[in-house]
Amino acid sequence: MKVNLDCIPCFQRQALQAVRFISDDEKLQEKVLREVAKKLLESNWDLTPPELAHQVHSIVKRITGKDDPYKDVKRDSNDSVLRMYPKLKQKVKLSKDPLMTAVRLAIAGNIIDFGVIQEFNLEETIREVLKKKFAIDDYRKLQDKLEKATTLLYFVDNAGEIGFDKLLVETFLATKKLNKIDFVIKGGPIINDATLEDAIYMGLHTLQNSEFLAISNGEAGTGPARGSQTVKSWISEHDLVISKGQGNYEGLSEHSGLFFMLMAKCPIIASDLGVEVGDIILEYKP
Amino acid sequence: MKVNLDCIPCFQRQALQAVRFISDDEKLQEKVLREVAKKLLESNWDLTPPELAHQVHSIVKRITGKDDPYKDVKRDSNDSVLRMYPKLKQKVKLSKDPLMTAVRLAIAGNIIDFGVIQEFNLEETIREVLKKKFAIDDYRKLQDKLEKATTLLYFVDNAGEIGFDKLLVETFLATKKLNKIDFVIKGGPIINDATLEDAIYMGLHTLQNSEFLAISNGEAGTGPARGSQTVKSWISEHDLVISKGQGNYEGLSEHSGLFFMLMAKCPIIASDLGVEVGDIILEYKP
Repeated sequence: MKVNLDCIPCFQRQALQAVRFISDDEKLQEKVLREVAKKLLESNWDLTPPELAHQVHSIVKRITGKDDPYKDVKRDSNDSVLRMYPKLKQKVKLSKDPLMTAVRLAIAGNIIDFGVIQEFNLEETIREVLKKKFAIDDYRKLQDKLEKATTLLYFVDNAGEIGFDKLLVETFLATKKLNKIDFVIKGGPIINDATLEDAIYMGLHTLQNSEFLAISNGEAGTGPARGSQTVKSWISEHDLVISKGQGNYEGLSEHSGLFFMLMAKCPIIASDLGVEVGDIILEYKP
Repeated sequence: MKVNLDCIPCFQRQALQAVRFISDDEKLQEKVLREVAKKLLESNWDLTPPELAHQVHSIVKRITGKDDPYKDVKRDSNDSVLRMYPKLKQKVKLSKDPLMTAVRLAIAGNIIDFGVIQEFNLEETIREVLKKKFAIDDYRKLQDKLEKATTLLYFVDNAGEIGFDKLLVETFLATKKLNKIDFVIKGGPIINDATLEDAIYMGLHTLQNSEFLAISNGEAGTGPARGSQTVKSWISEHDLVISKGQGNYEGLSEHSGLFFMLMAKCPIIASDLGVEVGDIILEYKP
């Protein structure tokens, strides 16, 4: 997906939110906003949204001198999810279809996003998503693929949300032995995307046979890009592949043989998927 | 009120919406967005939002060659309100407190806005606003002022919405004779703000003793600015003064002796008023 014109003002809003997370200084906020707007004007708008996002957030990092403006926000998200984890685990265990409940919760957790949206209510989203109809529903295909799988590749999305991903994988493991679980995290900070630090904080490394693969956050040396041949070969080497969230949808949409699991949070993504904003999606791309 | 940093991306979103009303050509849309972003970067951000809005919308007009990009949108809004007018009139007439109902409807009509928001549902808004609690409630003061008034100055806001304003003034006239009714409209097109053409289309000129005063749309020769001494004297020369909507709130907030009647539609205005987005306000500024 290439950037849409609507993304241009949206990136500026995002940059403003990022600098406000770390400073109340309006002069600094204005400086960041002006530099981001300037950069966007100089840029070619044929890039993908994640590529442009990298440019935008590099400016925030450079001007504020903070390598990770969302550090506290990510920690808070992780902690909130850790607090509700035992209750969520119980909910999955007691439900008629534990896999379906865990899938829904993993999608609900995708609301924890500081890139696209400005405000969210996690508890309310969980309640809604547990009963909401899927706009795209390849659940049977997921059951089918899981039954035959021995290896799993899982592209995670945001901090906090990865607690829900852990719960989903634990639910897989309750009925199915997996010899290899590879979580794909970001090789460096960008917005509130989960990094290795978040994954370990949330205990994803405690799952048996689990390892981590890093993809690029846009900076050199942080890992291969989502669209690369390396990532393509990762996908073909695993039986079951799950991609969480909008960023991964944008970056992995050229690949095949994977499930996209997300909530449509911006009008551009929703329109690309042929759904409405707020819809939940479990789509298999053959 | 001076412009807030959040207004900068918002203006770009607004310009994009405006050009999309008149053309599907993505090249043209990109050109408008780039020029608007460039203009905003060159501008001093100590201006008021309406001043900056004028600069932004001048670019849309210049590049598209359309003097009034919202012409069709305004006509559609006017027509929708005309269609529901008889039913609304009946609702006011049959209600326990016709004045209160007409005030609420006039505020509900303020949702017809193509500057601040992207989508709205008028029928749903009417249902909500008819039962919603006022965040700021100077209704008694309005009853009191109306009882003593013989002259009315009424700053209207948007096309379509002015049908609701007409209904409110008719409700005033049902219990109270007014010797002079001056509607303040825009002296030229800007966004979907009501102009003389809209006012006449909606029949505001048919109200007894009604006349029109034009204020500036930002262009030279279209009328005095809202903050001017001329407008200040208009206010002091009338017994009852009503200001509809966010734009008038921003532009008239330095004056005194008037009622602000609006729905808070953007976070900046809401925060300035000390209310939440979506709240309804009837505030007397002494």
